[in-house]
Amino acid sequence: MDPNDLAVERICAAEPVLIDIQSAGEALPGMQPNMILTSGPTVPFDVYSGGQRDAIVYGAMYEGLADDQNEAVDKLESGAIVVEGCHDHGCVASVAGIYTASMPVFVVENLTAGNRGFCNFYEGESRHRLNYGAYDAGVRDQLRFLEHVVAPTLRRAVRANDGVALRPLIRRALHMGDELHSRNTAATLLFGRELFPHLLADAVNSQEEARRTLEYLAASDYFFLRLSMAAGKAAADAGHGVDGSTVVTAMTIWCQGTGIRVSGLGDAWHLGPFPSAEARFFEGHTADDLEWIGGESPITETVGLGGFAQAAAFPLQNYQGGSADAMMNLNLAMYDITVAEHPHYRIPVFDYRGTPVGIDVRKVLQTGVTPVLDAGLAGKGGGQIGAGVVRMPIECFQAAAAEIEVDAHAFPR
Amino acid sequence: MDPNDLAVERICAAEPVLIDIQSAGEALPGMQPNMILTSGPTVPFDVYSGGQRDAIVYGAMYEGLADDQNEAVDKLESGAIVVEGCHDHGCVASVAGIYTASMPVFVVENLTAGNRGFCNFYEGESRHRLNYGAYDAGVRDQLRFLEHVVAPTLRRAVRANDGVALRPLIRRALHMGDELHSRNTAATLLFGRELFPHLLADAVNSQEEARRTLEYLAASDYFFLRLSMAAGKAAADAGHGVDGSTVVTAMTIWCQGTGIRVSGLGDAWHLGPFPSAEARFFEGHTADDLEWIGGESPITETVGLGGFAQAAAFPLQNYQGGSADAMMNLNLAMYDITVAEHPHYRIPVFDYRGTPVGIDVRKVLQTGVTPVLDAGLAGKGGGQIGAGVVRMPIECFQAAAAEIEVDAHAFPR
Repeated sequence: MDPNDLAVERICAAEPVLIDIQSAGEALPGMQPNMILTSGPTVPFDVYSGGQRDAIVYGAMYEGLADDQNEAVDKLESGAIVVEGCHDHGCVASVAGIYTASMPVFVVENLTAGNRGFCNFYEGESRHRLNYGAYDAGVRDQLRFLEHVVAPTLRRAVRANDGVALRPLIRRALHMGDELHSRNTAATLLFGRELFPHLLADAVNSQEEARRTLEYLAASDYFFLRLSMAAGKAAADAGHGVDGSTVVTAMTIWCQGTGIRVSGLGDAWHLGPFPSAEARFFEGHTADDLEWIGGESPITETVGLGGFAQAAAFPLQNYQGGSADAMMNLNLAMYDITVAEHPHYRIPVFDYRGTPVGIDVRKVLQTGVTPVLDAGLAGKGGGQIGAGVVRMPIECFQAAAAEIEVDAHAFPR
Repeated sequence: MDPNDLAVERICAAEPVLIDIQSAGEALPGMQPNMILTSGPTVPFDVYSGGQRDAIVYGAMYEGLADDQNEAVDKLESGAIVVEGCHDHGCVASVAGIYTASMPVFVVENLTAGNRGFCNFYEGESRHRLNYGAYDAGVRDQLRFLEHVVAPTLRRAVRANDGVALRPLIRRALHMGDELHSRNTAATLLFGRELFPHLLADAVNSQEEARRTLEYLAASDYFFLRLSMAAGKAAADAGHGVDGSTVVTAMTIWCQGTGIRVSGLGDAWHLGPFPSAEARFFEGHTADDLEWIGGESPITETVGLGGFAQAAAFPLQNYQGGSADAMMNLNLAMYDITVAEHPHYRIPVFDYRGTPVGIDVRKVLQTGVTPVLDAGLAGKGGGQIGAGVVRMPIECFQAAAAEIEVDAHAFPR
């Protein structure tokens, strides 16, 4: 079988199921109590800058590893606190990411291959969130609320439900205006509906917790993104490691640029400069305020969702700009750089054509077309300042292609 | 102001709010304990035939007005049981309709004009339902369950919530793949989410009722249709009775054909033959099985939803056939026969253009284009056998136009 076909077949065959909610320390392979995970490759602390560096420092303080920023920086520089890249621990970062050991994560198992993907929780609708490099008492209290109220309540419900199959929810949400990256409204509603009977049963004992969890779910149209990301990671990893495959299995944005992983090229990151963005900024913000502080939610595009399914989600016009025609054209262009059409994830306006899936490094170079990502955008000084359509730079793909050519006999055409 | 502009302005200005759930006997103006309401104009019982006649007889038995079909027919013929048209009592029939005094109805108030519209409850996913002319112990038990469990539970929740504003739910559902006639999946989810906190609070006292109500909601993607219909009736009635207006304010299908009401022509029905249908039938059924037994859900098209918003609901392809392009073209054609674009209800794929609203009898005749309706289809012997795109016949509009010409000085051009 063609190595690219094999890699994509494994990605598409994934059956991601939310099987549990655990702390990052319990769940993530290799996670340590003094470890902080963030976007991008694993690099020394002094390579981080700006908002991503701030977010790492804030993470150390949130976790109680340091009392203030100075102490955190000292410990991060000395190695008493360790920073590593999310992808090396089976999880993916939303914007800056920031996983600490106590944070709850979704545990998603790909029933087909048996591997797992993880993601931590959406912090809520506030524009000031740790993953956007913001930190204050409000951010801290919200993270504690997730840990102490939402996570245990949902954990009981998930266990009572014997897990939650995510593929049917994703498939259905694509028919209800979501693309599972920048729009997760329907998927969040569908997820809530599946667990509500258990919340109801639970409420007899702990009504207040159920009520607050419900309130959080109802106010968080983005909630499901983290499940989409964990499911994406579990699917993409299943396609990783196929000898000779030039299919992309991860894309990252971090404070020094971008990077991609390729199925047949091991765990190396092929790096490039920052992406470009066609953005819609929240009132009071302009392009000058934009700062790239990280982002691994493009794992959704890697598995045929997000920008690769944007024609399923025309309401994104209101959030990130553009027109329905432009969205359809951007979406259609992704068929030119992918290996297959997803057998389960389909786009109603394209008469249920499968979404384009399996980005091929060679096709990107042949066409000069790079992946489009639907993404939230962070501002200097922290916080979300807008959203837009982000274009991966060609350089990541050129860097990967160079490796492929070096070892040309391993990559049959 | 142009009479048609005035009628449509009133339709579009409607702010429908679900204020209560009551029995039909309590809520509907002029409703009597021995009265049964059905689709179409009010006519003598012996005019009804086929499945609609059966449904009326079954309604009498369900209400305990007769012990068997013979007794029911005798009493209906003698006038001991009275049959009237739904529209004469502020409500609208889904398919055959069938309102009896004990059945719960949604009470929807148009806050703008103060008038009310009503609709009874969706019976659930079974294809055998009283409103499709089917009746047995299962149909009866389900109707009793709605009356004794769902209605009181939802009533408490609706009251605790101080009512539920429907326009925001409808507006949002249009961005999530619904057109609020043949697809109500998102609106049902959004409605459920709004009431969940109250169901949760309620569950401490009556967990079993809350659980069963929730189960019904989760299994009933069509649930919201009846709220869409009541909201449509409340909006359309607000546009009725404008002197000189040729705007359609109701469309009905019944066992003898079709009919329309026109804003400036009083409460008369302008009748025509059966509509045509491009249908997708459930497996095992063909066009030969089709029987027209009623339907007033086209009140949704009357106010700019359903077939007039079908380009918001591409997933209907799976249910009623067609392609995305065909749906867009059918939807676009409705702009040629309407007076305005809805200021609140918008279609994402058309870059948020307002839905076409206010069907003008004159424009229908000028263009020869008649309204398209998304509709469920009943079979001979009862039950739903499919769904499709239904075309109103031109004759209703010709009949109305004849009245308009008779009194030409009252209808300025």
